[in-house]
Amino acid sequence: MVSVVIIGSGNVACHLTNAFLKTAKVEVKQMFSRKIYKLHPFSNKIPLTDNIENLKKADVYIVCVSDDAISKVSASIFDRKSLVVHTSGSMPMDILKNSGRKGVLYPLQTFSKEKDISFKQIPMCIEAEKEEDYKVLEQIASSISNKIYHISSSQRSKLHVAAVFVNNFTNHMFKIGNDICEKYKLPFDILYPLIEETVSKIQEISPKEAQTGPAKRDDKSTFKNHLKLLDEDQKELYIAITNSIKKTYNKL
Amino acid sequence: MVSVVIIGSGNVACHLTNAFLKTAKVEVKQMFSRKIYKLHPFSNKIPLTDNIENLKKADVYIVCVSDDAISKVSASIFDRKSLVVHTSGSMPMDILKNSGRKGVLYPLQTFSKEKDISFKQIPMCIEAEKEEDYKVLEQIASSISNKIYHISSSQRSKLHVAAVFVNNFTNHMFKIGNDICEKYKLPFDILYPLIEETVSKIQEISPKEAQTGPAKRDDKSTFKNHLKLLDEDQKELYIAITNSIKKTYNKL
Repeated sequence: MVSVVIIGSGNVACHLTNAFLKTAKVEVKQMFSRKIYKLHPFSNKIPLTDNIENLKKADVYIVCVSDDAISKVSASIFDRKSLVVHTSGSMPMDILKNSGRKGVLYPLQTFSKEKDISFKQIPMCIEAEKEEDYKVLEQIASSISNKIYHISSSQRSKLHVAAVFVNNFTNHMFKIGNDICEKYKLPFDILYPLIEETVSKIQEISPKEAQTGPAKRDDKSTFKNHLKLLDEDQKELYIAITNSIKKTYNKL
Repeated sequence: MVSVVIIGSGNVACHLTNAFLKTAKVEVKQMFSRKIYKLHPFSNKIPLTDNIENLKKADVYIVCVSDDAISKVSASIFDRKSLVVHTSGSMPMDILKNSGRKGVLYPLQTFSKEKDISFKQIPMCIEAEKEEDYKVLEQIASSISNKIYHISSSQRSKLHVAAVFVNNFTNHMFKIGNDICEKYKLPFDILYPLIEETVSKIQEISPKEAQTGPAKRDDKSTFKNHLKLLDEDQKELYIAITNSIKKTYNKL
């Protein structure tokens, strides 16, 4: 059994804590947030505090705060014997400013308050300074997920920018598709099978091979028709992405 | 039983024909292509021709050729009694230049030669000039899919541009994610669970609500780190899409 204290009240803090509550291998001894009211859903299950000086002793402190706050918050954790880890995809391990041992426990996933999620398939990217700390993080990660990766700070930053493209930017493409459907009173869910297939395809053939459509074909008459239907912002993106696809297939 | 002739040898022609071969409700009487060698996989199953003047009689001619060729090819179909339909998402019905009845049978999906696909969940968007032709197209469409939609030419062009965003542009985001992983020797499949969740999310909450990440948070230090890792083309797209996301969440 590993004991942890969760620092933070955002999506990662809450989803991670919910996952730990389902395993006997990790004990969540406490949660901390200055916005303690956000931790209300846990008030019957876990001791809460909004005073960083009142942190309980634990094997690991898991800092799930915004990137900008990691340094300051970690510097306030005075327990020198414990391991302090952050959960950020884009920040190096040494952003942590506690005086003791450091590490990273990065769940490579997108979390929203409104949507439950199973951790079983989430890649848990771990990093530590010492071999024995890798073991502790493996214990924690494997209690909730089947997929553990050792990923250095340098690798993680690259993985994070790739994740931004495949997740945040992809989601924005869905958002624009949804906007177009709403504007023209079409049901967005008619596009779900196409979206599912887009994702299914790239797990069988590479995304470069999987591409189809007017940009790949350099189909100028379709571009003209499409641009008429888009607002200014959508048009700018359409042109930028179309040109990038055309470059990929030597059409520009 | 409806009899059809398939005109074309591309992805739509081949996948559609394969689907019809599995149902007793549609008989594929013939396939036509000037590039008849491309129809080789069907040579034991279906009569083939590369001479448009030798088309057999059929209830429906399904024109699955590139958008630019639809007018010319359809003008060559001299059978005045039959229904001629195209399968294009972006072209209006009246692009057809046959002298008889016209219609559209648009499978809203992305097709690649290398990947098999089930038609059952593919939205079949149909359009016709006459009520009785809708019935014929419903018969054909329902023989392979459970999802039939009546979609006008004007609606279809809007659906098509939405499809370009959620499919072609999304696939390009995956392609760039893959490129970044290859460049930095990271396994692309570590991103699959994230990609799956991105798609799962928007079927429960709207894409606008589902957005997370540095662009939504206007996280400038992450932008700086990310831009260092990208090549010029990737950088241009990163900035364009990030700005569009920032506008969406009033951060620009």
